[in-house]
Amino acid sequence: MGTVSLLADEDLSPEAAEVFAEIRAARQTDYVNNFWRALAHDPALLRATWDRLKVVMAPGALDPLVKEMLYVAVSTANSCSYCVHSHTAAAKAKGMTDEMQAEMLAVVGMAAQTNALVTGLQVEVDDAFKA
Amino acid sequence: MGTVSLLADEDLSPEAAEVFAEIRAARQTDYVNNFWRALAHDPALLRATWDRLKVVMAPGALDPLVKEMLYVAVSTANSCSYCVHSHTAAAKAKGMTDEMQAEMLAVVGMAAQTNALVTGLQVEVDDAFKA
Amino acid sequence: MGTVSLLADEDLSPEAAEVFAEIRAARQTDYVNNFWRALAHDPALLRATWDRLKVVMAPGALDPLVKEMLYVAVSTANSCSYCVHSHTAAAKAKGMTDEMQAEMLAVVGMAAQTNALVTGLQVEVDDAFKA
Amino acid sequence: MGTVSLLADEDLSPEAAEVFAEIRAARQTDYVNNFWRALAHDPALLRATWDRLKVVMAPGALDPLVKEMLYVAVSTANSCSYCVHSHTAAAKAKGMTDEMQAEMLAVVGMAAQTNALVTGLQVEVDDAFKA
Amino acid sequence: MGTVSLLADEDLSPEAAEVFAEIRAARQTDYVNNFWRALAHDPALLRATWDRLKVVMAPGALDPLVKEMLYVAVSTANSCSYCVHSHTAAAKAKGMTDEMQAEMLAVVGMAAQTNALVTGLQVEVDDAFKA
Amino acid sequence: MGTVSLLADEDLSPEAAEVFAEIRAARQTDYVNNFWRALAHDPALLRATWDRLKVVMAPGALDPLVKEMLYVAVSTANSCSYCVHSHTAAAKAKGMTDEMQAEMLAVVGMAAQTNALVTGLQVEVDDAFKA
Repeated sequence: MGTVSLLADEDLSPEAAEVFAEIRAARQTDYVNNFWRALAHDPALLRATWDRLKVVMAPGALDPLVKEMLYVAVSTANSCSYCVHSHTAAAKAKGMTDEMQAEMLAVVGMAAQTNALVTGLQVEVDDAFKA
Repeated sequence: MGTVSLLADEDLSPEAAEVFAEIRAARQTDYVNNFWRALAHDPALLRATWDRLKVVMAPGALDPLVKEMLYVAVSTANSCSYCVHSHTAAAKAKGMTDEMQAEMLAVVGMAAQTNALVTGLQVEVDDAFKA
Repeated sequence: MGTVSLLADEDLSPEAAEVFAEIRAARQTDYVNNFWRALAHDPALLRATWDRLKVVMAPGALDPLVKEMLYVAVSTANSCSYCVHSHTAAAKAKGMTDEMQAEMLAVVGMAAQTNALVTGLQVEVDDAFKA
Repeated sequence: MGTVSLLADEDLSPEAAEVFAEIRAARQTDYVNNFWRALAHDPALLRATWDRLKVVMAPGALDPLVKEMLYVAVSTANSCSYCVHSHTAAAKAKGMTDEMQAEMLAVVGMAAQTNALVTGLQVEVDDAFKA
Repeated sequence: MGTVSLLADEDLSPEAAEVFAEIRAARQTDYVNNFWRALAHDPALLRATWDRLKVVMAPGALDPLVKEMLYVAVSTANSCSYCVHSHTAAAKAKGMTDEMQAEMLAVVGMAAQTNALVTGLQVEVDDAFKA
Repeated sequence: MGTVSLLADEDLSPEAAEVFAEIRAARQTDYVNNFWRALAHDPALLRATWDRLKVVMAPGALDPLVKEMLYVAVSTANSCSYCVHSHTAAAKAKGMTDEMQAEMLAVVGMAAQTNALVTGLQVEVDDAFKA
C-alpha cells in the first residue's frame, strides 16, 4: 500500500535523518512511525511538519493530553484511519484512560449527529452567537 | 432561511414545551437558541437529543470545557457553521480563554493538515498502533 | 456572492438556452433556479448534468421521492447548504410530508453519529458483511 | 486493528449483556456484529445507541428499507467503510434488490457531483427555496 | 470486500463489454481496473461515467496531468483510499514526478489546514472576493 | 459573524504588524484580507501560516496557478465557502481563464462523483496501484 514507499533509516537524506534524530530524542524511543517514513521523501515538508507539530502540541493554555484528544476528534471527523490509530495511541501514552476515551467518543458522536441535524434543518445563526 | 420554521414558545407542542422548560432550567436563562426551535417540530427527536446531550456533556472523566472544545473541533471538521458559532459561545461561557481558543484552533488546523497528508500518502497503520 | 455570475435568459448561449427550455418543459414552470444559471457558463457541463440528472432521478426501482430524500441526505452529509435547500424544496414538491422529513433527518443524524463512533473505534468489517 | 478490543460475550458487563440479548431478540439471530462488540466497552453509550436506533429505524412515515438506504447514502458520503458494508448488508436483508442498490448509488454519485459543483460555484440560495 | 462482486470479462453484459473494449482501446492496455468491474453491474452508469470521464479528462484549457492532480487532490480531501491510489498511479503514468507529487501534497495539506482555520474562525467573505 | 473579531491595523501586535507588512510587500497591494485579520489574534499561528504558505505556493515543479487551482479544488471538497471565494479570486489574478475554471470545476465534480461511487461500492485497491 501507500502512494510512496516507507523510507528506512539508511535511505534518508541528511536533512531527513536530522529530523528523525530529533523525533527520537523528543519521544525517547528509537521507533519512528510510518507517517514520518512516508513524509521523508520531502525533507522540507518533513521538517516543517515536525517543527510545527512540536510547537502546537506543547504544553500551553491547554495540556498535551487535551490537545491529543482534540487531534483524535478531528481525525475521526476527517475519516483518517491511520490518524485515529496513531493519535489514540499517543493519547493513551499521555494518560487517556478508558473512561476518558469513552467520553471523548461520546462527544464526537453527539457532535456529528447534531452537526448533521443543524445542516439538514439549515438553522440560522442566532444573533447572540455572533462575536 | 431554514428548511423548517423556528417555532416560537406559543407554537410548541406540550412535549416540546416541557423540553424547553428543562433547557431553561438547566442553563438558567430564558433564551432558547434556534437549534432547539427548529428541532421542536419533532418533539421525540428534540427529547432524545436533549436527554442525551445532558448526559454526554456532563462532568465526568473529562471536564465540561474540554468536552465543549471537542465539540467545536468536530463541528469545524464537519464544516457546520451554526455549530461552530454556538459551541464556541458555549465554550467561552464555560471559561475558554482567547489563548485556549487559539491553541485549540492550532491543533484543529494541524490535524486537518496531517490528516490530508496521511490520506494523500496512504500510509499504512503501524503494527504498534493496533490495539 | 458566487464565483461566477448568474446568467439571465438573454445572456445564454444557444446550447444553454436549449437546456433551459428543456428544464422549463420538464418541470412545467418558467422558473429556472440559480444552480443552472451558474452552470450555464459551461454549456457542455450544463448539458451533461441535466441529461444525467433526468435519467438518475426518473422513476425506476426507486420512486422519485425516495431518490429526492437520498439527495437531501447526501447533500446534508456533504454540508452543501444550497443543495439542502433546493432538494428539500424538491422533495416537498414531490410529496414529502413533515413527518417524512423528520424521520429522514433522524436517520441522517443517527447515521452521522454511528459513522463517527465506528471511525473513532476503528471497527473491523465483519466477515459476514463481505460480498 | 481497532482502537479498542472487540468484547466476547463472556467479557460483557451485565448492562451490556442485556443490550446484546435485546439485539439478538430483535434481529432473531445469535450473531452480534463488531460495532456492538466495540461499543460494549461503554455500556451507557451502547444502551443509548441501541435504544435510539430501534426507534429511528422503526416503520413510520418512511418504511425501514428506505431508512436503511438513507443510512447507506450518509455512510457513503461520510466515507465510513464499515458502515457502508454493514448497512448495505442490512438493506439487502430488508429487500434491497440489485436494481435498487444501483439506483441508490447513482443518486449518491449524482448528489456528490452537484454538491461539489454548487460549492465550487458558490451558488446563492434562491429566495424560492427559503422556508 | 466490496458491496458488489467484481465482474470478470465473461460475466459482462454486452453493453458493459462494449465499454470495456473502449477503455482498453483508449488506454492501450488489456488491464481494466476494479472500479470498472464493480460499476459493470449497472451498465447504464458504467456507460455514463466512462463517456463523461473521457470528456472531462481530455486535453483542453488544462492539460491532462493537471487534471489528474486535481483528481488526486479532491480524492484526498474526500478520504477515498481507492481513488487516491488509482489517480496517483494515473498521474504518475502521465508524467507526475516525485517533486510534483510532493508539491501537490504540500498544497493539499496547506489547504486542509487553512480550510479548518477559516471554518473555526468563521471568517466572513471579503467584498473584494464577491464576483 | 466570526468567532473572533477582525483586527484593524491599529490593533495589531508588533509581531502581527510585521507579518502584515510582509503580506503587503509580497502581494504589492495595501489590502489585507479578512483571513489574516482573524488569524492576527494569534501572532505565532499567523507567522507560521504565512511563512509556510509562501514556501508552499512558490513556483517549483508546479507553477503557482496550478497550485492555486489545487487549493480551490481542496477547499471545494472541504466545503469552505470563504476559501473557495478567496482562492478562486487568487487563481483568477494568476491567470485562470473562464475556460480553465470551468474545466477545473468539471474535474472536481467528476472526482466527487466517482469518489462516492467507489465508497458506496467499497472497491478493493488493485495490486497494480500499490507502490
